[in-house]
Amino acid sequence: MANSKFEYVRKFELPDSCLPNVWMVVRIDGKGFHKFADAHEYQKPNDDRGLNLMNFCAQQTMNEFKDITMAYGESDEYSFILRKDTTLFNRRASKISTNIVSFFSSCFVFYWTKFFGTYELKYPPTFDARVVCYPSEKNLRDYLSWRQADCHINNLYNTCFWALVHSGQTNKEAEDTLKGTFAADKNELLFTRFGINYNTVSDMYKKGSFIYWSEVEETIVRMTPKGHGDSTMVEREFVRKRRQPTFFFGDIISDTFWSDHPQLLAV
Amino acid sequence: MANSKFEYVRKFELPDSCLPNVWMVVRIDGKGFHKFADAHEYQKPNDDRGLNLMNFCAQQTMNEFKDITMAYGESDEYSFILRKDTTLFNRRASKISTNIVSFFSSCFVFYWTKFFGTYELKYPPTFDARVVCYPSEKNLRDYLSWRQADCHINNLYNTCFWALVHSGQTNKEAEDTLKGTFAADKNELLFTRFGINYNTVSDMYKKGSFIYWSEVEETIVRMTPKGHGDSTMVEREFVRKRRQPTFFFGDIISDTFWSDHPQLLAV
Amino acid sequence: MANSKFEYVRKFELPDSCLPNVWMVVRIDGKGFHKFADAHEYQKPNDDRGLNLMNFCAQQTMNEFKDITMAYGESDEYSFILRKDTTLFNRRASKISTNIVSFFSSCFVFYWTKFFGTYELKYPPTFDARVVCYPSEKNLRDYLSWRQADCHINNLYNTCFWALVHSGQTNKEAEDTLKGTFAADKNELLFTRFGINYNTVSDMYKKGSFIYWSEVEETIVRMTPKGHGDSTMVEREFVRKRRQPTFFFGDIISDTFWSDHPQLLAV
Amino acid sequence: MANSKFEYVRKFELPDSCLPNVWMVVRIDGKGFHKFADAHEYQKPNDDRGLNLMNFCAQQTMNEFKDITMAYGESDEYSFILRKDTTLFNRRASKISTNIVSFFSSCFVFYWTKFFGTYELKYPPTFDARVVCYPSEKNLRDYLSWRQADCHINNLYNTCFWALVHSGQTNKEAEDTLKGTFAADKNELLFTRFGINYNTVSDMYKKGSFIYWSEVEETIVRMTPKGHGDSTMVEREFVRKRRQPTFFFGDIISDTFWSDHPQLLAV
Repeated sequence: MANSKFEYVRKFELPDSCLPNVWMVVRIDGKGFHKFADAHEYQKPNDDRGLNLMNFCAQQTMNEFKDITMAYGESDEYSFILRKDTTLFNRRASKISTNIVSFFSSCFVFYWTKFFGTYELKYPPTFDARVVCYPSEKNLRDYLSWRQADCHINNLYNTCFWALVHSGQTNKEAEDTLKGTFAADKNELLFTRFGINYNTVSDMYKKGSFIYWSEVEETIVRMTPKGHGDSTMVEREFVRKRRQPTFFFGDIISDTFWSDHPQLLAV
Repeated sequence: MANSKFEYVRKFELPDSCLPNVWMVVRIDGKGFHKFADAHEYQKPNDDRGLNLMNFCAQQTMNEFKDITMAYGESDEYSFILRKDTTLFNRRASKISTNIVSFFSSCFVFYWTKFFGTYELKYPPTFDARVVCYPSEKNLRDYLSWRQADCHINNLYNTCFWALVHSGQTNKEAEDTLKGTFAADKNELLFTRFGINYNTVSDMYKKGSFIYWSEVEETIVRMTPKGHGDSTMVEREFVRKRRQPTFFFGDIISDTFWSDHPQLLAV
Repeated sequence: MANSKFEYVRKFELPDSCLPNVWMVVRIDGKGFHKFADAHEYQKPNDDRGLNLMNFCAQQTMNEFKDITMAYGESDEYSFILRKDTTLFNRRASKISTNIVSFFSSCFVFYWTKFFGTYELKYPPTFDARVVCYPSEKNLRDYLSWRQADCHINNLYNTCFWALVHSGQTNKEAEDTLKGTFAADKNELLFTRFGINYNTVSDMYKKGSFIYWSEVEETIVRMTPKGHGDSTMVEREFVRKRRQPTFFFGDIISDTFWSDHPQLLAV
Repeated sequence: MANSKFEYVRKFELPDSCLPNVWMVVRIDGKGFHKFADAHEYQKPNDDRGLNLMNFCAQQTMNEFKDITMAYGESDEYSFILRKDTTLFNRRASKISTNIVSFFSSCFVFYWTKFFGTYELKYPPTFDARVVCYPSEKNLRDYLSWRQADCHINNLYNTCFWALVHSGQTNKEAEDTLKGTFAADKNELLFTRFGINYNTVSDMYKKGSFIYWSEVEETIVRMTPKGHGDSTMVEREFVRKRRQPTFFFGDIISDTFWSDHPQLLAV
């Protein structure tokens, strides 16, 4: 049976390469994660198991796709930034986004028990992904600022909302309480009604999780000959440098972090 | 902190909707599955556990995304055909492909033990996905024929190759034995050297797995009042119709299957 | 001076081929033609010189790009339909649309005097163009119906509007007179106030201009030897068939025209 | 007749906006201009009438589309650079390219006699157009360098080729003479065989035509009251500043021009 007479159908696949010399950002986003969080009894406003699982999957994703230079995550979403000059999958948007979202989704299920222990995963989760291109350093930093500002706004709101609900208000009452309030009002409310100083809330909740490659030194032990003519094998410590995806739970909106890490925007 | 000054970055996301009134085909494809199959000791040329897992995940995918009307799988790939008039995710190619490939990947890990039992999944698998649009019935059928012809060619080759290898040839020797042979030669080789009548090989191996929605009757048992004034509850059988993703392991290249199922190409 | 170090910039040009096996429609549209018509004292509601110039340019365009099988024009716009299987410019949307709109624009200026005589063209006109793909015969016919219905609605309105204005109403008064009227009202108004039976209005105004390739016989005269041994040259008439872009000013919404010309939708 | 049931066909038009914050370059290119030049007896290697007409049309195009900040032309092609932040036609590639190429083509025919006098334009010329996006200043300058290097290479070759042909060689002989020669060889050939010092060749031929907006002062005369209580009207000269598309026939590859005109890359 000849395959050739059907092969013309390949020509219907149209190319979708991204412009060269722009940063490609792949943002993955949980589908129906409100329901997913309820079904798996996530703690509110933040569930450490869930966030740590997301963070771990993101690290694995950076290890798998080395052209990802940075990533930023909050809640059920993660953004992966690829080198401006990456040639991964010939810069084809669909190849890049589907490979990343598929691997991330696999990881989420695969590493579930690492963070949730014996707590059962009830059904397979879904994430979507999109590719957005940013031509300038300013655009890219504004993108990351946009996500971090989003994280801040949501987390402050959710911290108040769940404090109110845990104190006995219904969801509707809590919403009404918070309607029209500004950040200062919310800080005040947390402090006066619940004794919570928002400044002391975990940075991972307030700022989200930023990951970048940084060089770490690690000490390894190898068996080597004793030397000076003596071939007896002995343990010796070596220090070697290794690049690894490293977390930063701080401010990525202002300039400080970026001037401390100029290499991140150089590629 | 106002989010608004960063929000302009949303405008960098460009639309990617598919043309209306064409069939969208999402084909997912295992990444590095040669290595994956080796790492998990897949049986050659076909591993039932692996194929059945793929098939089960594809069924789940159809249940999750009801606008998938048919699917066809072979080896480590699966094609999902969406209704011509689907408005799923506003026909946005990236949304459709990433949701499907993410869910499928999650399922693969989630349902692994259902098919592999205690055999450990060693690392999270990755699939890619692409969307291809087909405007005419002929184009769509030729696409499916292309995949089924591909399945046939590969399976006949692999059946010979692994028979030779299992009989003691090296991979290189088996390749050389098969170089330049036609289908008839391969059938002959299988029969004379290994006593295998290729016709009797499992249809799932030879033809791949086609899935479509079909109506099945199922008998359910419900407790109902006995009636005629007697409110004692008794078990009664009911027959109800339900649509479910159903397998067909036969020929989808010739007309027979399609004239028997005209509704499949009607949408 | 080597050119090679700059040549990488070619890679920034991204492909834009249209899906195979769909009809590509290129619609060109006059930019600022309300002003253009005023500046060149077009007769209202329809200017024969202007319409005939558009029609002639469209014919030339079909002669220049033979893969255009049909065209439909009204007012300052023209739609060109390309064969479903055209490989013109590898089906690249930008190549196809810019070539057609450039040639049409050149023609409009080049042939101006053929229709406007000594009436001076005051400035160079501009047209834009877009490519839209239609996968099914129904979609394509609905596209053409959409344009012809548009022509009808506009022409009926404009015929009334300018009759009112020529009879002394201001533009504002004429608009008010027509506000909320239906087709029947407009026909009535034309007949009772201006003695115009809309049915007798020129078909080119009411239905727009459809062009398709049709075979015509033409008689040509050639000098040939008399024959029977006599080599004296004499004039002889020959009939030859030639395909030429031919106008149809009738209904292309109902089925009649299409069942009379089945070859038009076959390619 | 309701138009509404056909209007769904509008949805088949897919969006094609360019990424924000990148330079869009629209390059138009003559189609079949070798034949066109022959048909209109263009002087070889350069025809001043033809080049000046191209240049004039490009100036008109910049006046018509003010968001074009620069343009570069050579031979039968012209590149127009739009402001990085232009919102012209919502940055839709097809709208931008078709409007520009249509206007340019119209101008070419419209202004023909301004440069060719009574020499007849024999048929309507065609140009194509494409849009290419460049994200960085370096990419944009490299694009312009690429075109100017192309101009140089072609002009040096053509100057030699036509000198040889005008001296009696056939086209084939001239090609063979030049095969494998480097720039230095060509300069030498021009000087020793034809007494042409290539350095003294017109810059417009060697470097092409670059156009940018520059501010010029112009003196205008207006009738104004004499003043000091005397209302007699008298002529008075005023100097006003006006931006106009201005030519530069020099080097745009090295840094000098750009450091002298920093505003050009600022937008």
